[in-house]
Amino acid sequence: MFAPETGYANVLREEACLPAAVIKASALENNILWMQRYADKRGVSLAPHGKTSMTPWIFRQQQKAGAWAIGVGSAWQAQAAMACGINRVLMANQLVGKANMALVSQLKKQYPDTDILCLVDSLDNARTLAAFFSERQQTLDVLIELGVSGGRCGCRTADEALALAGNVSQLPALRLRGLELYEGVLHGHDPQPQIETLLREAADLACRMEKYVDGEFILTGAGTVWYDVVCNIWLAAEKPAHCRIVIRPGCYITHDNGIYQQAQNELMARDSIACDIGGNLAPALELVAMVQSVPEPSLAVVNFGKRDAAFDAGLPQPVAHYREGKMLALKFGALTSTGIMDQHCMLQREPESDVSVGDIIIFGTSHPCLTFDKWKTLYLVDENYNILESLDTVF
Amino acid sequence: MFAPETGYANVLREEACLPAAVIKASALENNILWMQRYADKRGVSLAPHGKTSMTPWIFRQQQKAGAWAIGVGSAWQAQAAMACGINRVLMANQLVGKANMALVSQLKKQYPDTDILCLVDSLDNARTLAAFFSERQQTLDVLIELGVSGGRCGCRTADEALALAGNVSQLPALRLRGLELYEGVLHGHDPQPQIETLLREAADLACRMEKYVDGEFILTGAGTVWYDVVCNIWLAAEKPAHCRIVIRPGCYITHDNGIYQQAQNELMARDSIACDIGGNLAPALELVAMVQSVPEPSLAVVNFGKRDAAFDAGLPQPVAHYREGKMLALKFGALTSTGIMDQHCMLQREPESDVSVGDIIIFGTSHPCLTFDKWKTLYLVDENYNILESLDTVF
Repeated sequence: MFAPETGYANVLREEACLPAAVIKASALENNILWMQRYADKRGVSLAPHGKTSMTPWIFRQQQKAGAWAIGVGSAWQAQAAMACGINRVLMANQLVGKANMALVSQLKKQYPDTDILCLVDSLDNARTLAAFFSERQQTLDVLIELGVSGGRCGCRTADEALALAGNVSQLPALRLRGLELYEGVLHGHDPQPQIETLLREAADLACRMEKYVDGEFILTGAGTVWYDVVCNIWLAAEKPAHCRIVIRPGCYITHDNGIYQQAQNELMARDSIACDIGGNLAPALELVAMVQSVPEPSLAVVNFGKRDAAFDAGLPQPVAHYREGKMLALKFGALTSTGIMDQHCMLQREPESDVSVGDIIIFGTSHPCLTFDKWKTLYLVDENYNILESLDTVF
Repeated sequence: MFAPETGYANVLREEACLPAAVIKASALENNILWMQRYADKRGVSLAPHGKTSMTPWIFRQQQKAGAWAIGVGSAWQAQAAMACGINRVLMANQLVGKANMALVSQLKKQYPDTDILCLVDSLDNARTLAAFFSERQQTLDVLIELGVSGGRCGCRTADEALALAGNVSQLPALRLRGLELYEGVLHGHDPQPQIETLLREAADLACRMEKYVDGEFILTGAGTVWYDVVCNIWLAAEKPAHCRIVIRPGCYITHDNGIYQQAQNELMARDSIACDIGGNLAPALELVAMVQSVPEPSLAVVNFGKRDAAFDAGLPQPVAHYREGKMLALKFGALTSTGIMDQHCMLQREPESDVSVGDIIIFGTSHPCLTFDKWKTLYLVDENYNILESLDTVF
């Protein structure tokens, strides 16, 4: 990268290789603060799911803003978070395999002041963990996972979860800290009633489990766009005496122009508290790419593809058009992504659209997780696309 | 990783964190040699598409086995190939953007003995390249790209391609080396007749373009599973006097258990030469993962997901089942991947199947490109899943 004019390399001046994934600094900061404000306003703790970005620089900003923990999905991700100074890691997943257990054991030695929690949903797994960690004279902090029939992991009934909690409390080397669920496995046209039922069941289960937990009881959900519903139900429900509610949204960090934007719009429509705190999440993650070929009047080919962006929840779509550093008008629907290959994206053009080889097109994305994981480095940019920082990911 | 017994860490003994992506050394070597033998037998040059693996160790094995070049899709990938000692890089894509051009310019300085070629399909792009490289007193080697209507990049007619070749030959700093196409844009129930027509058109165009090319004329296609058809048509066609046919298959390197296996089966059925050389491609890339939850009699949850494997051409499917290092019988259809989330795969189980938390399941994959690009490191393993090498990718 070179930056002859301002000291900052500029993406629109082609001072970085394109395609590039950029994060708008102001939108990122907005999102970090907005979600923290939301959690604070509700009086719950925030454990942003770090697997979305796997970007240590972002983890640190989230912690600095007040996050209670960073959520991860594997021992390997826990290591990445702890190595960059995160004080509490909520591994919202089962810990299986000797090598993964050995890694957690080593992390507990290396970072004795860091709190690390994981999930259990079977006696088999609990016994294996108990044997492994008692042999090493260490204690592993666990939450019971409550699941739903036809869902993912988790005990299928409250009774089963309660029985497992009782067993875990008797096993050596395990410390039971509370209860976890992932309501995102409930789908369909209107999953909200089912989600509310599950949340009420969890609060009731937490009361029955309370006797197995010393001190604070952690009750955690909302690794999804239902964080308002989780707060509503759990704040109103009868709970253990010392109960910490922890919400775990992840994709809010960059938001998007697709599935998460739609979900947040629905949340803003139903949740007056989200409206009251002012502002809203803003799309922060963009893909900056270049037109490499205009082979037909109705087609332009842009130099990014499946290797560069998520494509499982709608294709990235153009949000801005630049030529030689100047923004051109981009009429809604004038350029539409219609196909994607490994390294090419096909844009359908309206006949009157003006597109040339070398033009820069900026794309909004849908489903940030699977765009982040394509990049070793993303650029933090200001509103003028000056590169403020190179953000390394640790996938 | 630790390896108390053999000196090699073993994946099945849980001496590496799971999930892990592994490449079977014998199958990889088989595939490298098989495809080289095929190219040698046909008397054509092989430029394996390196973007599939983006693994320098593999590039070097391909070059050592006789590959004429490594194919790449971007300037950034060209840099990765040249940095690991590759002598000729065929960038089967347009070079656009000042930063990408600057990178190629710098690579040409840094590796003066390395041959690097890219594609042009428009006069706009050719003029920009000519201005950029003549200003730096460098010469850029280019191939004209021939495309098809409704396809991707490339001139849409032979006349257009010929006119562009004439113009390129007049521009400073550009050296025309030949003609490229990517027949993979032709889809449908039976694309072979269309592919053959395109190949014949390209050979004819090459004869008309010959006057603009000094020395050897490079005629290249087959970045697909149609490498036999490309050889058949071009070897039989009238061509420029000094013509080097270059085929560019990529996914053969690890082959797969999905779309590429099916395509290769079709090729073996139609191409007697592929049969004559003996052997065949073998699936080399596997995902080794662990059962983390068995929450219902018909469901097991395995600890990998969209973050670990391609899912755009069929889900990874179980090919082997281990418990405490011992292989269990895996009846065809007894375990079937039916759903995938970011970090979980849902396996439907036949009721009588025996699956426990902590079991290792090995999965075959479909579409290797999008599995490779999920990993910073893959393990090269022997038949017993001992780890022979850690192979770093450079995505």
